[in-house]
Amino acid sequence: MEYETPLFFHVMAYAAEADHDVVDMVSGNPDWEPPEALRDGLREYADFDADRFQYPPSEGIRPLREEIAERRGVDASQVVITNGAGEANYLAMARALERGAGSEIVLTDPVYSYYPGKTTMLGGTAHYVSAGADGHLDPSVVRAATSDDTAAIVVNTPNNPTGAVYPEETVSELVEVAEANDAILVSDEVYDHYDLSGTFTSALSVDSDHRIVTNAFSKTLAITGFRVGYAIFPSHLVEDAKSRHMLVNVAGSRPAQYAVLRALQETDPAYHEANRELLRERVDLFTDALDGAGADYVRPDGAFYVLARFDDYPGTLSNVERLIDEAGVAGMPGSAFGESCEPWLRFALVTPRVEEAADRLAEYFT
Amino acid sequence: MEYETPLFFHVMAYAAEADHDVVDMVSGNPDWEPPEALRDGLREYADFDADRFQYPPSEGIRPLREEIAERRGVDASQVVITNGAGEANYLAMARALERGAGSEIVLTDPVYSYYPGKTTMLGGTAHYVSAGADGHLDPSVVRAATSDDTAAIVVNTPNNPTGAVYPEETVSELVEVAEANDAILVSDEVYDHYDLSGTFTSALSVDSDHRIVTNAFSKTLAITGFRVGYAIFPSHLVEDAKSRHMLVNVAGSRPAQYAVLRALQETDPAYHEANRELLRERVDLFTDALDGAGADYVRPDGAFYVLARFDDYPGTLSNVERLIDEAGVAGMPGSAFGESCEPWLRFALVTPRVEEAADRLAEYFT
Repeated sequence: MEYETPLFFHVMAYAAEADHDVVDMVSGNPDWEPPEALRDGLREYADFDADRFQYPPSEGIRPLREEIAERRGVDASQVVITNGAGEANYLAMARALERGAGSEIVLTDPVYSYYPGKTTMLGGTAHYVSAGADGHLDPSVVRAATSDDTAAIVVNTPNNPTGAVYPEETVSELVEVAEANDAILVSDEVYDHYDLSGTFTSALSVDSDHRIVTNAFSKTLAITGFRVGYAIFPSHLVEDAKSRHMLVNVAGSRPAQYAVLRALQETDPAYHEANRELLRERVDLFTDALDGAGADYVRPDGAFYVLARFDDYPGTLSNVERLIDEAGVAGMPGSAFGESCEPWLRFALVTPRVEEAADRLAEYFT
Repeated sequence: MEYETPLFFHVMAYAAEADHDVVDMVSGNPDWEPPEALRDGLREYADFDADRFQYPPSEGIRPLREEIAERRGVDASQVVITNGAGEANYLAMARALERGAGSEIVLTDPVYSYYPGKTTMLGGTAHYVSAGADGHLDPSVVRAATSDDTAAIVVNTPNNPTGAVYPEETVSELVEVAEANDAILVSDEVYDHYDLSGTFTSALSVDSDHRIVTNAFSKTLAITGFRVGYAIFPSHLVEDAKSRHMLVNVAGSRPAQYAVLRALQETDPAYHEANRELLRERVDLFTDALDGAGADYVRPDGAFYVLARFDDYPGTLSNVERLIDEAGVAGMPGSAFGESCEPWLRFALVTPRVEEAADRLAEYFT
């Protein structure tokens, strides 16, 4: 097989096997509570008549699609409920490649680790454009890298791993570049509820037949294990995407879809604001301690992660394992996110022990 | 797009839009109760700590994999929990094609409608072998159709739509044919708990590196909407299958996996025997009425379906729609299951109104 398995699971397993205390900052699993209405939704579902335990419509239960369509200002027919953002991105990239309008996928470096594997699996070729460790993508660099052979440009904003949030001009220029090359902009916006900067712009804000927006409730509602995501397609691409969804998965899991629906209907915006506030505090705590350790870091504008760099300690897998063994802190090797990230380590702020972890790092490196 | 969308959803929508009473015998949604322990599992899950709402292991929660491995007599490392049998078959067929040992998929005619679409989507070529409307596959016919270019032979036992249950000799000979051609036998056994003949043999009973067994709890536990299935791979194929699973879906839905685990742990064999007894009664009721209507039919040895043929009424989509409109009975066009099924209609015995439906058919056709 020519596609790479993401390193996440390897590092998580290594950290779990340690016989000493390790602060887990590896994966993007929120450690805060899901909304109470989500739990209520599961309880209610458990008592439903058995006919509601059977196949939902392949594209997802209708009230959930309608709720999403209304929130996102699109027609419900454009919405496909997927098995998390993982499947949403898979469907979007497959659709872009199957159009017969190119075989190249433009990805950023740093990159979210799953995109390269999906590209290869789908028979595409990855072409990287540099965004730097701060993740600030220059659309003119993307323009220069894009050609007739470009099938898709895949971006993630707010960005994992850099924490960058693309400004409105970047988003609209990326759509324009996609249009100019008959390519598809795939905008993965799973961290949209964790924009700490107030500047997040969805690619949906630009009306175009050349963009697909993917998202999920995994981070939004702190339920990465429920696997409820969605993709919003332009009308001319949605039917074929639904066919692939049906042929791969038939449909997503219905109890999870129903619980998400209840959570959307009943959760106050304050829930999301409180989560952002928690993240802001953790960013402060963690970066203060990194300052103390003399580390270089990128202060995130959104998402859950801090990229940090320590002198003479590149972000290799073996250095990550050494940090688990000797400092009791587990992060992700920067190398998992592309060449430009090789000097860096990524720490996920999804533990109440952020300060303790930072102190351990400070002690280890000073 | 070159792969066909199954007709199920079209026919179901047509039947649902009728403004008169229609007995729905279209899809394979059980109308009997799931085990009570399944509901208990969902209720229990709803109260779990939030960390159990996060990513399960990509290949599925460990106790469920272990429970399946023990029941099936395999090592847990060979088991991948999938988003229903749909994904299990997709992973199995993808793995067979990616081995570089052929690009042809041998399918039976009649065929379960999703297999041809998956074949085309994955870049394979379908090659059909005739099984006849009674579904009795002659392994020597499969042997003659198989060559160096065969990547996989995909079969379904108990069979949808014919109701055939392959005898032990057929199963072992199919494995042998796969081995002789360096191909993979994919044996989809989702109806294994609905063997009405007592003769069902799993492909797992033949030890081989050349067979993948797929299954799901959709039918077994009457929960087609939960999307919990699994595939059992030979050790040398499992890692790459897990990679694809991770790249497409990341993981399956965790609340559904937990509910299935509880149901497996606590459900008595009597639950399954009662469901089989219900099906046996419905087969009798329906076929008696078909006898009365002078129809030709295939008495199923397993699964949920009866193929029936009425004089001068081939199983086209338009005839199915006419039957919905004029007789108030919705079935599936035989043409959805391959050329040999074109004269036939498929009726799913998943309604308490089986006798009423049969009476309507008798009245309409006599």
